[in-house]
Amino acid sequence: MTTFFSRMALCAGVGLLVLMTTGTAQAAVSGEAAYIFNTFSFLVHGFLVMLMAAGFAMLESGLVRTKNTAAICLKNIALYSLAGIMYYLIGYNLMYVDVAGWIGSFSFLYNPSADELALIGADEATPEMVAKVVDASGYSVMSDWFFQMVFVATAASIVSGTLAERIKIWPFLIFVVVLTGVIYPIQGSWVWGAGWLDAMGFSDFAGSTLVHSVGGWAALAGAIVLGARKGKYGPDGQVNAMPGANLPLATLGTFILWFGWFGFNGGSQLALGSALDATAMSIVYVNTNLAAAGGVVAAMALTQILYKKIDLTMTLNGAIAGLVSITAGPDLSNPLLALIVGAVGGVLVVFAVPLLDKLKIDDVVGAISAHLVAGIWGTLCVGIFGSGSIVTQLIGIAAIGAFVFVVSFIVWTILKVTMGIRVDEEDEVLGLDRAELGMEAYPEFGSGSQTL
Amino acid sequence: MTTFFSRMALCAGVGLLVLMTTGTAQAAVSGEAAYIFNTFSFLVHGFLVMLMAAGFAMLESGLVRTKNTAAICLKNIALYSLAGIMYYLIGYNLMYVDVAGWIGSFSFLYNPSADELALIGADEATPEMVAKVVDASGYSVMSDWFFQMVFVATAASIVSGTLAERIKIWPFLIFVVVLTGVIYPIQGSWVWGAGWLDAMGFSDFAGSTLVHSVGGWAALAGAIVLGARKGKYGPDGQVNAMPGANLPLATLGTFILWFGWFGFNGGSQLALGSALDATAMSIVYVNTNLAAAGGVVAAMALTQILYKKIDLTMTLNGAIAGLVSITAGPDLSNPLLALIVGAVGGVLVVFAVPLLDKLKIDDVVGAISAHLVAGIWGTLCVGIFGSGSIVTQLIGIAAIGAFVFVVSFIVWTILKVTMGIRVDEEDEVLGLDRAELGMEAYPEFGSGSQTL
Amino acid sequence: MTTFFSRMALCAGVGLLVLMTTGTAQAAVSGEAAYIFNTFSFLVHGFLVMLMAAGFAMLESGLVRTKNTAAICLKNIALYSLAGIMYYLIGYNLMYVDVAGWIGSFSFLYNPSADELALIGADEATPEMVAKVVDASGYSVMSDWFFQMVFVATAASIVSGTLAERIKIWPFLIFVVVLTGVIYPIQGSWVWGAGWLDAMGFSDFAGSTLVHSVGGWAALAGAIVLGARKGKYGPDGQVNAMPGANLPLATLGTFILWFGWFGFNGGSQLALGSALDATAMSIVYVNTNLAAAGGVVAAMALTQILYKKIDLTMTLNGAIAGLVSITAGPDLSNPLLALIVGAVGGVLVVFAVPLLDKLKIDDVVGAISAHLVAGIWGTLCVGIFGSGSIVTQLIGIAAIGAFVFVVSFIVWTILKVTMGIRVDEEDEVLGLDRAELGMEAYPEFGSGSQTL
Repeated sequence: MTTFFSRMALCAGVGLLVLMTTGTAQAAVSGEAAYIFNTFSFLVHGFLVMLMAAGFAMLESGLVRTKNTAAICLKNIALYSLAGIMYYLIGYNLMYVDVAGWIGSFSFLYNPSADELALIGADEATPEMVAKVVDASGYSVMSDWFFQMVFVATAASIVSGTLAERIKIWPFLIFVVVLTGVIYPIQGSWVWGAGWLDAMGFSDFAGSTLVHSVGGWAALAGAIVLGARKGKYGPDGQVNAMPGANLPLATLGTFILWFGWFGFNGGSQLALGSALDATAMSIVYVNTNLAAAGGVVAAMALTQILYKKIDLTMTLNGAIAGLVSITAGPDLSNPLLALIVGAVGGVLVVFAVPLLDKLKIDDVVGAISAHLVAGIWGTLCVGIFGSGSIVTQLIGIAAIGAFVFVVSFIVWTILKVTMGIRVDEEDEVLGLDRAELGMEAYPEFGSGSQTL
Repeated sequence: MTTFFSRMALCAGVGLLVLMTTGTAQAAVSGEAAYIFNTFSFLVHGFLVMLMAAGFAMLESGLVRTKNTAAICLKNIALYSLAGIMYYLIGYNLMYVDVAGWIGSFSFLYNPSADELALIGADEATPEMVAKVVDASGYSVMSDWFFQMVFVATAASIVSGTLAERIKIWPFLIFVVVLTGVIYPIQGSWVWGAGWLDAMGFSDFAGSTLVHSVGGWAALAGAIVLGARKGKYGPDGQVNAMPGANLPLATLGTFILWFGWFGFNGGSQLALGSALDATAMSIVYVNTNLAAAGGVVAAMALTQILYKKIDLTMTLNGAIAGLVSITAGPDLSNPLLALIVGAVGGVLVVFAVPLLDKLKIDDVVGAISAHLVAGIWGTLCVGIFGSGSIVTQLIGIAAIGAFVFVVSFIVWTILKVTMGIRVDEEDEVLGLDRAELGMEAYPEFGSGSQTL
Repeated sequence: MTTFFSRMALCAGVGLLVLMTTGTAQAAVSGEAAYIFNTFSFLVHGFLVMLMAAGFAMLESGLVRTKNTAAICLKNIALYSLAGIMYYLIGYNLMYVDVAGWIGSFSFLYNPSADELALIGADEATPEMVAKVVDASGYSVMSDWFFQMVFVATAASIVSGTLAERIKIWPFLIFVVVLTGVIYPIQGSWVWGAGWLDAMGFSDFAGSTLVHSVGGWAALAGAIVLGARKGKYGPDGQVNAMPGANLPLATLGTFILWFGWFGFNGGSQLALGSALDATAMSIVYVNTNLAAAGGVVAAMALTQILYKKIDLTMTLNGAIAGLVSITAGPDLSNPLLALIVGAVGGVLVVFAVPLLDKLKIDDVVGAISAHLVAGIWGTLCVGIFGSGSIVTQLIGIAAIGAFVFVVSFIVWTILKVTMGIRVDEEDEVLGLDRAELGMEAYPEFGSGSQTL
């Protein structure tokens, strides 16, 4: 604010610089304007993705039983918070700073650059100060941090739904700390940090594998170590439904996720400072929407055919699976392909959910099916429909899957052996809300009112 | 939102003019920057409108009874999906491509232009490639598609609320396919596609008639063909209240609609690449907010006077009616008028709801009152307070109303005769959730828990 | 957000200077582009803050009992509406127009400038018309009105939660009219209107004091005049828990508030038209997120330690307290400090809630603790960690606190003496929904279903 005058003066200086090097500047976007567009794109798309934390919270609140609702709310706001803190403390550096093939820098905190601090703190900003900042990366580094941070939070959100209704809060949160501080950033460095997988040509535009499958692998490892909810699988192989307590909230959560996904995929264009970027981003929005729509219609039609009734929960997961499927390649130039990619995602989720139940892997909200299975499919699509190689895509899927699953399995096992990760049987019957929080989500109705 | 194409042509022309007639182009916005602003405006305002789908879902979830809640959730996510698919497959072309007075092009798919694909696929974008794309329309064509798509989805959303609690899911969705693929685009072409009504001077900035009344007419036709809910109207003329099950969700839905309406009206400025557009858009935001506020206060005060108690549901509908009322002319230069226009909308809804009940037209959520009645009022306001002609406005209202109502009535009737549109009595008593979906929205409380 | 007008005057002058002294503006951001960026920033950040009204509505709906839920929904949509109307009718002028030290102009309506109307009404906009508008303030004046309006609505939202479950609707709304039309704007003029406190150097970037403490002081005065809910405090000093009916809604509300806060703090940079602004805004986003995360983790850990169980409601208030704490100084250059500032806010709220109960001040949702206590802390932080003086910050806190508390106390007392502000005992037991609205929020479950 104090530097308003100097801001104007510096505009002139930077102008001079560009004028000397190009003769057509007036038709194009200036470096500083591009910097603002790029930065604002990170902020706007970042706040969209941030709201996905609310989307997951509502989806999961709607799909658990009343007695575990407050606990899942707590987990969701806590994991979003911890993800941000860990990514600030060490995660971002591990993922993006000085990546040497397999890992970035083990250093603490991620702060604005000295040039940026000089700019915003200057009594009088010189054109050189602006040029330094603009030329450094083309966007404000903290806007990029913000955008990347909401991605790691998304990966963590996926885990909470799968493990709901029987996991203890604190061990879960410790896992979140490891996932968001270490596991996610390391594998992220392989691709988005320009590590070895990126060098191989592995392509994942917005994270079908890097975010969604990662969350899914971590959830799968946790589900295996943790075991199924008491009573979920009968002794004779039957699967007992444990219906979610509040389907409008689950629907709201899905819509919010869809809304947030425009930020997730659109913002992953990573720039808005040129006509090319704006055009590409528009196609990403359209593809994202059509893939989700395809997932909805496919899941809806398929459950009608298979079960003679439309399954709402499956339809909601169809939307998510469609979104996850297109996330690796939302820059497809043909939206019809996006529709098909998403529809196949919706089909996959309808088959994956009962398959996991057959394997007695208890995934409360279907997150493994929607995020891991569809994530694999979407990542392969870049090889099938896009410019990627199927083999390279498979290598990336396998490498990241193996790394995340194995490390997560080890961490879950250590937590299990040391502090225990599961509430005892009595508490599970009572519900996590009363056992872990000493409160109820709906004290005047639901199982709450019956037992008061 | 009128004369889409003519405005764009104007835009390009004026831009050229400014460059030619002044030596101060550096103070203006470059063509490429304007392209980015315009495109980003479509994307940002488009995602706001997209969230209105969640707003309708929550509003309707809150206003139906528990036994029909999951079904209304399903319909809302399904209709949003189908609207997008149909608008991609045929709707947009019918509405905007080669419109010859009464109808656009019956052609399939709407994809990025060849120039846009060349630009985003280029290894190195040349200034000529950029210029081609920038000069073509001043914005990315897919960003415009995205923005227009969420409008057709809004029209479809209106229908679901009116017909809730007794309509079968699949026939409803077939109607949505026809509405979004054919009915909406044809009448849309008359105005926004620069067809005959636009040529006459009919003006509807963001769709009081083209979107909201269209949804209302389609809902009205459906309500007549479908009939009232069993028990809604007693044999002696009494009207039985069937109160909504979850008013906080209805409130949330209304707030989300209000939020989304800044995209609906603000984005309908259709451009952000000049000071003129940014200024006009700001006024649109302010008018939109004041009209909604006027609708709230008017409905609240009026129900207090009429019924000695404030009616929350009516107040929520007052907000929506205020928003619908200002939608045809949110570019009024005097915000005080917007406040009055919205307040009158709020008054209208309070009288329209019991009037429809007197006519035994059963509108579960009040959508016909809030969207059709207020939509007519708002469209007239452009003649009363704005630059339009009242006669022309009336012609447009009548022409679109007649077309949409008659065609919708025919489609509903065909559906009724062929596959049936109404669940049988037993299923209506049981609730659509169990009858059509085989599940419950709130299995642990509400009518769910009582019958388990 | 300080020195609004001085900045704008500077802007116009410097803009002219640059045009006159250099011929090279095209590489920097043109005046018109900066105008668009600044305006669009107000609109985007404004709609984010607008959604906070929904956030408060959900938070409060979740934390009251079922029998008072519809009433709190009504109050929230009504107060948002009235705030906008009052701020249009007189509030903005009082706060920002011709501020003479202690107060602005008592004049009616706030409309677009003549130059802006000329621009948007022109058949052909000349460069001179554009220049007039762009040079006047650097942004569209109505976009600024919109952004400031959602702030005053936020202050009013804070009050409704504290006084829930026993206040009559109409007297509450009359208080809102006075608060948003007079009280808030007058104290606002002292700082953001460039009045006496601004001249002293008092600094409050986005309103820890000007918005949040103001809401808190008004709520505190109301709570004292109104008295506690019947049965809240027992005769032997015990405090009876009256648990909120719907914790997932409270969680959703908190997430929405967090989401909206990026608009609240980010938009308070008040400009986006330069690299400096974009960079500073990015840091604001990051600090805002980390402070909220710090508040969550601190409140969670502290309630675990103190009560052996994590308290979800307290954790949600921890997020809000963290956000309020950073609001006075989100432009801190070190995000680690933001994390600490927010964490301390989370600690404060955990101690403030039982302290108020000890004083028998009945704050239904904890708003006084989260907004007033954390607001004071955050305002002091500008002196402790930022560039402000602690003494000046204390003077501002005390002056605004005294003014708002005393005037609010008087207004509440007048309302109490004249029309009464509290429902009678019978109605309080019955619940405000039935007593004041004649309806129920959840007629099929909760206390609704039991008494039907």
